[in-house]
Order: sequence, then structure tokens, then C-alpha cells
Amino acid sequence: MRFHTRKWIKPQDLNPNGTLFGGRLLEWIDEEAALYAIIQLENSRTVTKFMSEIDFKSSAREGDIIEIGMDVVKFGNASITLRSEVRNKMTREVIITIDRIVMVSLDENGKAKPHGKTKIEYVKDRLKD
Amino acid sequence: MRFHTRKWIKPQDLNPNGTLFGGRLLEWIDEEAALYAIIQLENSRTVTKFMSEIDFKSSAREGDIIEIGMDVVKFGNASITLRSEVRNKMTREVIITIDRIVMVSLDENGKAKPHGKTKIEYVKDRLKD
Amino acid sequence: MRFHTRKWIKPQDLNPNGTLFGGRLLEWIDEEAALYAIIQLENSRTVTKFMSEIDFKSSAREGDIIEIGMDVVKFGNASITLRSEVRNKMTREVIITIDRIVMVSLDENGKAKPHGKTKIEYVKDRLKD
Amino acid sequence: MRFHTRKWIKPQDLNPNGTLFGGRLLEWIDEEAALYAIIQLENSRTVTKFMSEIDFKSSAREGDIIEIGMDVVKFGNASITLRSEVRNKMTREVIITIDRIVMVSLDENGKAKPHGKTKIEYVKDRLKD
Amino acid sequence: MRFHTRKWIKPQDLNPNGTLFGGRLLEWIDEEAALYAIIQLENSRTVTKFMSEIDFKSSAREGDIIEIGMDVVKFGNASITLRSEVRNKMTREVIITIDRIVMVSLDENGKAKPHGKTKIEYVKDRLKD
Amino acid sequence: MRFHTRKWIKPQDLNPNGTLFGGRLLEWIDEEAALYAIIQLENSRTVTKFMSEIDFKSSAREGDIIEIGMDVVKFGNASITLRSEVRNKMTREVIITIDRIVMVSLDENGKAKPHGKTKIEYVKDRLKD
Repeated sequence: MRFHTRKWIKPQDLNPNGTLFGGRLLEWIDEEAALYAIIQLENSRTVTKFMSEIDFKSSAREGDIIEIGMDVVKFGNASITLRSEVRNKMTREVIITIDRIVMVSLDENGKAKPHGKTKIEYVKDRLKD
Repeated sequence: MRFHTRKWIKPQDLNPNGTLFGGRLLEWIDEEAALYAIIQLENSRTVTKFMSEIDFKSSAREGDIIEIGMDVVKFGNASITLRSEVRNKMTREVIITIDRIVMVSLDENGKAKPHGKTKIEYVKDRLKD
Repeated sequence: MRFHTRKWIKPQDLNPNGTLFGGRLLEWIDEEAALYAIIQLENSRTVTKFMSEIDFKSSAREGDIIEIGMDVVKFGNASITLRSEVRNKMTREVIITIDRIVMVSLDENGKAKPHGKTKIEYVKDRLKD
Repeated sequence: MRFHTRKWIKPQDLNPNGTLFGGRLLEWIDEEAALYAIIQLENSRTVTKFMSEIDFKSSAREGDIIEIGMDVVKFGNASITLRSEVRNKMTREVIITIDRIVMVSLDENGKAKPHGKTKIEYVKDRLKD
Repeated sequence: MRFHTRKWIKPQDLNPNGTLFGGRLLEWIDEEAALYAIIQLENSRTVTKFMSEIDFKSSAREGDIIEIGMDVVKFGNASITLRSEVRNKMTREVIITIDRIVMVSLDENGKAKPHGKTKIEYVKDRLKD
Repeated sequence: MRFHTRKWIKPQDLNPNGTLFGGRLLEWIDEEAALYAIIQLENSRTVTKFMSEIDFKSSAREGDIIEIGMDVVKFGNASITLRSEVRNKMTREVIITIDRIVMVSLDENGKAKPHGKTKIEYVKDRLKD
């Protein structure tokens, strides 16, 4: 799994108990899944269709730094299935895991659109061509 | 299921495709689950522990009004399991459903704390006593 | 009066004194008035035209849950006049009251547009037809 | 009346009709009233107690620049009464007016606290002493 | 230098150390520079092109009021160069200074567009004509 | 240079011209610099002290994905000097560069505190010990 985006937990990200607000974390994961899928499928009309069970294993506190990991589980015809794990950057303690996040590629009418991708690609390789 | 909180989809809630950003919707549901659980368990130290599969059935557009529904599935010892459905207020089209959201009641040390609740209560009845 | 939308007071909603920021509360009431009027008038081009005196009776603290109530005072030709009360969900203490919020229905050119409504309607009845 | 704070209307400040969201404007006015009162009363524990009628005279569009004016109507014992007007910076068209905003000075227990002020003071004069 | 816009440091503006988040301050300065340039150049298509060195001289705390000053250094052909200083409103302690912020006026195709301005103008004088 | 954090440009990140708001970009860079420095110096009391000239080379549009790169220029006694570049993830076009961002490590009294670091470390190596 590759960990890219990092977040610094600030006051505006806390729930009234002083720990990371779960809704904020879900917002961050959904954004990371969306941009990861857009990069892979090369289609910015890519939306979240499904998330499997979400287990909140531990929490984070103000000032903690977390990192959001994404991996590809499967390339479908018009979809891509991702797996995500969020962990504390300094301790590597796992905060949340989601086994399957299904993102679907759409055409300009909002219908599922085959993407023709079958494996992870890197932007640097695409730019070589 | 009871539908309380309503949201008006504004520009800041959209993804770049012009539809409701999924991460924002998850943030709203998590907040509604948290406050619903806090009201029932009468303990503000209540956190999200688990969410079952999330199915994004349809989307919403700028200017749409949505409402967030919550229902109790089960009262555990230190937990409460909720079910949520979000729908378009005007058309009643279902946007998202989550069958189980497990919220856990904590004590001041962050340990699970039995809440002693076994059925839905209404604030107006509590205030009568 | 019907109380629908609920808010959980989080750090980002506080003023530097640690109580609910009055501006945030006004923002929430205006949004609730707008969506209530849009639902009743079935016109999403509905804007706030006037608010009567606003009395801040008590405040709220981090972690409090508040609920926003709305009632119809009068149906005008192109307007609807609402009354609002915000209260603490757990104690029912009143936080703010506004006796008249006038919302106006507009046409696509931004001119007042008669809405033909004379009484409160429920979406479930509309959908029966 | 003195106009200090200026705002540039950005996408996140719009309602779904594409004009300035009224709730956002009220939030900005409340913040400006609070900081104006804090500067005059030299007490950061100053809260909004009352606003008189609010008349939304015109609206603003994305990209417009508005300025928020404040003036003192009266110095009370523990309060200060302000008047506010918001206008378009480029055309001077009035957007909203509020005749009386009553801000109250509090002590550390949240009780009204006499401030001893009777007229507008300027920070530059205070710093001369 | 003229100081117009004021900000009240709220919880959402803090970094996890409890002082004003530097990124928030830069966001505020950039907005003030943009609107100042738009007012002077009478062209809303004005964008930030360059900022000279930024020296964070002191910080601010929750509840502090700061004011953002702007001055014109030079009128270019399609640009305007500004100088900015942010200071604590009550103590006048300097928080940050930026010697040159270059804003460029664009045409509808995003190309630099001469603005014909050579000196500071006031809106009230323009409106007299 | 290593590129970690990625952002998806959403409506709330735009200026009224429809391109990425410069202030938002500066906010993102400052946060990334802060968390990068905190990770390297292993001290969460790390603040921004200085930024060298900022050149806005190109802009970004709604829906674009950008990535924020950081590199270490120098380890000082109580400081770390970073270099940052932000680029479009898909095209690698450079959006902004900053040659020096000086972050300072503080003790609990807000005084500069030597950090004892002289080279880049990786969390995975630290955790091995």
C-alpha cells in the first residue's frame, strides 16, 4: 500500500471530545479515493459507489499527523476497487481500514463508462510516451 | 425511521463534477449518528466504532434538500447500533443507506462504559420527571 | 413549532470565549429558514428578505446539541413569514427566538413571483397524488 | 460610519441561487460587531445580546467586494449598541442595514460587567499614554 | 499604509500549538491583496503573480484581533505591486510583513492586460463623476 | 524532492475567476511544511518563521489534482530549511515554487530549541530500533 496524503489534526478537525471527528476522517478518505481513482482511470468523472465495512480501530489527537494509504484491489470494466488504511505517521498505529471502496467511471451523461485499464500505471511512465 | 436534520446542497458541498461530494455526505451522517446516540445514551463521550457497508444509490445536485434518517437497531451493553438512510426531501429518492452504525459510550478514561439503556427515550418524557 | 435540524457544537463553532459563536448560529437559522421555505413554496429561488428582532436568550457550549424550530406565521402572495426558535435539545432551554423571517419566492429574473400557497403542506401528501 | 473589513465573494459564500448566502453575511456582521465592541470596551469577553430588524435590501454576486460598516449608537453601563450597514464597495449600493446590535461586556463568570466607557476611543490615542 | 480588514482569531484559525496557523494568515493576506488590487485596477480578473520574502515576526493567540494593511509600491503596465503588514489591533505589534506582492490584471483569455492606472484612486471620487 | 500530499481542486478552493485561490494554495503549502518539519524534528512545537520569494508560475482549475513536494535544504541548530514545489499531478506542470521555508523548533515556553538532527530520517528506520 502506498501512503501519500498527510493531514495535521487541527482544532477544526476535532469532535467535542477532543479526538479526531470521525466524519472528517471519512471525508478525507473519500477525497483520497476519488483522486486516486481519477489518476488511475484518467477520467475526472469518477464517483464513489460503495464502501465496505469501516472499522474505527483507534483515534487521533490534536497535533497528530496521519497518512492515508490506498491500494488497488481490482480493475473492473467501468470501476476500480480500492483498499484504504489510515495510520498515525509517527507510530504507525492503524486508525481505520476499509477493505473495498468501489469507484465508478462515468461518461458525460452520468452513465458507467468502460475505462480500459487493467493495471496500476504511473504518471511518469505515461509522460514518457 | 425518523428524519430530523436537513441540509441544503450549496457550492461548498459539491465535488468537481457538480454533484454532492460523497465525503461531505459521510461527514453529515457521522455527525447525525453521533448526536442521535448522545441523546439516547445521555453521554456526550460517545464515538463511532463501526459502519457496515455503504451503498451510494443516487446523488444530489446543488440546491437539492436532503434529510438524514436514523433508527435504532439494537441497544448493547456500552453500545448502540443505528441504521441510517439519507433521501431527497422533495422526491424521497434514497441517496444512501447504512444498515449498522455502532456507537460506543465511553467513560472519562476512554474505556467502554455501560449505559443502562434498553429502549428509545424521548427528551420530553425525561423532562416530565 | 416543529424542530428538525440538529447541530452538535464543535470547536469550529465556538467564539474565542468558548461559547457558541453568534454568527454561526445565525448562519444555521438562515439556512433552515431557506430550506423550510423552499419545501413549502416548492420553489428553490427563495431568498431571505427580512428578519425581525433577534434576542440571544442563552448560549451553548462545546458538545451541546441544539435543535432549530420553524413555524409558519403567514402565507403572503409571493412571500412566506416564518417564526424560529432554537433550543438546547437536552434541557429545552431557549437559545434564540426570531418572531418573523420573511422569505420571498423569485422568478428566474429575480422578481417576486406569486406562489399560490395558503397553508402548510407535507411532502408525503404531495407524493400521494 | 466607518467601513473597515472587506470581503471578496467566493464560491463558498454563495447559496444555490448563485447569490451571496444570507447566513454567511450575518456571520460576517456578527464577527465584525464582536471585534468592534471588543476594541472599544477593551474586554474580549463581549457577546452579542440583541439585533434589531434586519432588512436585506439587495444582494451580491460572486466576485463582488463588500465592506462592513459599524457605528456606535450608545454606550450603556455594561453594553454598547452598534449600528451596521453593509454595502457594495464599488457601487456603494446598500446590501443590508441593522439599526441596533447590542453587545454586552461580561466578567469571568459570564455576568454583565460595567465597562466604564462613554465615547469612541482610538487605539493610537491609547498607545500614546 | 491603510489598515482595513480585521480578523478575530477563532478556534478554527489555530494550529495545534494554540497559536494562529500561518497558512490561515497567508490565506487572509492573499485575499486582501486580491481585493485591494481589484478595487484599484477596476478589473476583477486580477491574480497573484509573486510574493517577496515573508517574515513571521510574532504570532497571535485565540481571541486576538488583527488588522491587515496594504499599500501601493508601484503601478506597472498590467500589474500593481503592493506591500502588506499585519499587526495586532490592540498592541500594534507587527505579526508579518511582505514587501512586494505583485498582482496582475488579466483579460478574458487570461493574458496580461494593461490597466491604465498610475495612482491610487478612491471609490468616492470615482462615483462623483 | 518527494511529493506526498495531494489535493483535488473543489468549488470551495476557487477564487471568483474560477481558478485555484492563491490563498488556499499557500495554506496547503504551510500545512505540508509544518507536518514535514514535525516529522523530521520529532517536535510538534514547530512553527513557520520565514518563506523566501513565491512565484506563481501557473494556475489550476476545478477538478485538477495537484501534489505538494518538500525537500530539505539545510538542518540548522533549532531550525530546518525546506524547499517546496507544487505541480499538477497529471501534467507535471509546475504551479508554484518556494526555495526556502524556515521552520523553527520551539520548547514549551516558545523559545527556539535545538533539535539535534542533521539529516533526513525515515519513520520506518526509527521504528526498527
